[in-house]
Amino acid sequence: MNIFDRIQKPTLLLDTQTAKASLHRMSERVKNAGIRFRPHFKTHQSAEIGEWFRAEGVSAITVSSLDMAYYFAQHGWQDITLAFPVNLRQVEAINELASRINFGILVESPDSVQVLASRLTAPVQVWIKVDTGNGRTGIAWDDLSTLQAVANSIRTHQNLQLAGLLTHAGQSYRTSPEKTVCQVYQESVNCLNHGRDALAALGFGQIQASTGDTPGASLCTPGRVDELRPGNFIFHDVQQASIGTCREEDIAVALACPIVARHPERNEVIVYGGAIHLSTDFLMENDRRIFGWVALPQDKRWSAPLNGAYVRGLSQEHGVIHLESNDLEKVQVGDLLCILPAHSCLTAHAMQEYLTLEGRRILTMNRQA
Amino acid sequence: MNIFDRIQKPTLLLDTQTAKASLHRMSERVKNAGIRFRPHFKTHQSAEIGEWFRAEGVSAITVSSLDMAYYFAQHGWQDITLAFPVNLRQVEAINELASRINFGILVESPDSVQVLASRLTAPVQVWIKVDTGNGRTGIAWDDLSTLQAVANSIRTHQNLQLAGLLTHAGQSYRTSPEKTVCQVYQESVNCLNHGRDALAALGFGQIQASTGDTPGASLCTPGRVDELRPGNFIFHDVQQASIGTCREEDIAVALACPIVARHPERNEVIVYGGAIHLSTDFLMENDRRIFGWVALPQDKRWSAPLNGAYVRGLSQEHGVIHLESNDLEKVQVGDLLCILPAHSCLTAHAMQEYLTLEGRRILTMNRQA
Repeated sequence: MNIFDRIQKPTLLLDTQTAKASLHRMSERVKNAGIRFRPHFKTHQSAEIGEWFRAEGVSAITVSSLDMAYYFAQHGWQDITLAFPVNLRQVEAINELASRINFGILVESPDSVQVLASRLTAPVQVWIKVDTGNGRTGIAWDDLSTLQAVANSIRTHQNLQLAGLLTHAGQSYRTSPEKTVCQVYQESVNCLNHGRDALAALGFGQIQASTGDTPGASLCTPGRVDELRPGNFIFHDVQQASIGTCREEDIAVALACPIVARHPERNEVIVYGGAIHLSTDFLMENDRRIFGWVALPQDKRWSAPLNGAYVRGLSQEHGVIHLESNDLEKVQVGDLLCILPAHSCLTAHAMQEYLTLEGRRILTMNRQA
Repeated sequence: MNIFDRIQKPTLLLDTQTAKASLHRMSERVKNAGIRFRPHFKTHQSAEIGEWFRAEGVSAITVSSLDMAYYFAQHGWQDITLAFPVNLRQVEAINELASRINFGILVESPDSVQVLASRLTAPVQVWIKVDTGNGRTGIAWDDLSTLQAVANSIRTHQNLQLAGLLTHAGQSYRTSPEKTVCQVYQESVNCLNHGRDALAALGFGQIQASTGDTPGASLCTPGRVDELRPGNFIFHDVQQASIGTCREEDIAVALACPIVARHPERNEVIVYGGAIHLSTDFLMENDRRIFGWVALPQDKRWSAPLNGAYVRGLSQEHGVIHLESNDLEKVQVGDLLCILPAHSCLTAHAMQEYLTLEGRRILTMNRQA
């Protein structure tokens, strides 16, 4: 039976061969640079997919929530960094986990360090979160007095082990013709090392530097850093392809959606597949919001993205798809379209499970068998 | 113990008193108009909250997916309309459900009717989906020839029982000073009745009219319709308050989020609470995207929305909150903020459970005990 024949409702297809090839490529890149690969598991959130990383020799990982840390610890991961500013309301659960594994957390203020110092009962690796230009959170890279104050505060407490400086250079998603991904990446690494050298000069000894957005990690020479934490590269998506991080054919997930209505007079079809399946992240293309590209089922995979086709709008369960007339003529109500997501991390989170092209379900932390 | 003291991570608070008051008000409105109340359960997705509706005398409901129909059928609901264009890939599951309950589906093309006719083994109520100006899907209200073709096709098949015409007047969310919600609502009802009268003149007998967006149902005289299907009114949200459908204090859900970083120099704090918790629906306010309003925990509920505060951005787990300086001074890392969602349906779906202000968990179809 063809994989597409058994699909009845929005289903996240996973091309495991493509994903494993992307993983192997990234793993080799990092290995060849002689630095630690600490991939971010928030993209796939799956213990089974985690095993593919183990097969590549990965032993250290990154997660985005304490629940995710617990899930992967339960599946045998012993070295986990929670790359999110520490949540002081979860110190008890941090203590429990840190008593079992090598657990890393992020801090970005002396006040947080004080609270942690008074409540931690197990040793944790502490990374100081640095903002190298992304503008979301972290200590500004050139605010050396705060960096020093936080580092000083960490040093005085036995359960806080200063690991180094960590950044997420999310600004690599906002590049322009004037500034390439690798210029952005290198600037960010320089900012990180500016802080590292300042702390070293103050006698803080071995201070590591950790970075890791997928565009920078895919395209640029790592430079003077100790570890890389990309996540999205395992699946890629339309945002990555638009930046030039990957080719269209490297996108390893597609949401298969039944067509439920045709509107040839306005070059649109409606699919069963909406905000709760795809998520509503988008990118701008020709001044339009694009929630995804569109492909057709083809043999045992999906086709190349259809020329001029895109996901124009999403409501809770509906997707509104623009198709050029020649493609619209080919499809009927009841057929499937395959949507390449704008942002695969959020789509994977929303769907909570995968169907491989070989027809096997792969579950995530939010979906038990 | 105060409800807020036990919150460790993003938690969807539900003020049951406010929600029940909104439900009672809507139920009375519809009852007094002498028409059927078929509320949309996609907003809350919870069997327990469904019981509040039953206590108001509700026996007919609307859902947005077949899975949701199965869930509520399992909880004793015997009269369910799936208000989504019929998905021909799920006909077997439709047959199974339609053999047990009074089940309604939506069609919008003669082709779909043909497929259904050949494959349905149990009687279903068929609503013809009409587009009265929303522009998402449905037969254009003035396309009488297609309306007639679909109705004719339905009439010739025993398992297809023509219930009437149905619309979702989502255009009521896009009102302007020039056109009020009730002008939009009345226009939509007129369009629906235009088709109904045309079909009646052709001898189709008893054709019902069904409508039901929350703004129209909350604010306007129902007029010549047989049933109303609003859903969002049980929780309301920032979009509804902005339209004028409800008061700020009628918003019955808020996402409690721990503060994890403060950035006074740019009037922002970072909370643990992002796209995967709140969803990324937004509304435009002063040319800015607003993902939610912001309140403080106050006694046993949340405060009024803070002046000038809003959710400026969301990534997977981070929320970026703008606060005016006087409010920013009041909060510390580790404190909670309560976010009133832009669109509560998507937030409820993302969170999959509620914590009442009395401290009890209420589960949804996607979260079992």
